Amino acid sequence: MHSYTPGLHVLATFTASPAPLTDAAACQAFFDEQISQHGLSKVGEAYHSFPGSGGFTAVVALTESHLSIHTWPEYGLATFDVFLSNYRRDNSATVRQLYAATLAFFGGREQSLTEVRR
Amino acid sequence: MHSYTPGLHVLATFTASPAPLTDAAACQAFFDEQISQHGLSKVGEAYHSFPGSGGFTAVVALTESHLSIHTWPEYGLATFDVFLSNYRRDNSATVRQLYAATLAFFGGREQSLTEVRR
Repeated sequence: MHSYTPGLHVLATFTASPAPLTDAAACQAFFDEQISQHGLSKVGEAYHSFPGSGGFTAVVALTESHLSIHTWPEYGLATFDVFLSNYRRDNSATVRQLYAATLAFFGGREQSLTEVRR
Repeated sequence: MHSYTPGLHVLATFTASPAPLTDAAACQAFFDEQISQHGLSKVGEAYHSFPGSGGFTAVVALTESHLSIHTWPEYGLATFDVFLSNYRRDNSATVRQLYAATLAFFGGREQSLTEVRR
């Protein structure tokens, strides 16, 4: 039996304009395209839009771990996570690419970034 | 407009015996009970069990942010997250209580703990 190989978890907060922060459908299409492009496997998801602010919360279960985003258009920001295990291959580069693509998709400006190896 | 108040995100890795690490249904019932007990609001979820190892991956979307767990019975461990925003009230104590209850539920032994205020 191999031993557990920790994966990389990126936690970020970024500011962005209200339009992408209120478009859950566009975010879902973007995440799906990223998951496909990186050869990841989605096994479940939940997207929920908030009636008042138009913000949304999304969690995506992957065989490799998960993605999540919580948007706050009323504050012009979002908290984003991507965590991929390294079970079959080293996914650390994919974690960073997926975060960079997300930041670009939202036209975001990074406010904080934490990397946890776990 | 109030400004954004960062919430507490706990990321933990703990070891546990295989039985709870392969029982997604028991974990789901436990999470649902915790969510109810703490007055949190679930807006979506995904639970997926792995055919080979019996491990499972779960993500739960809350109006307050999310919970996730990824279990690895073949290594006797799990990675767990709970992140609650402080939108309507300070949920920091709830985050720590929910983590402590999860550790107790799994009969787990903490291997690593990271707290991120975000």
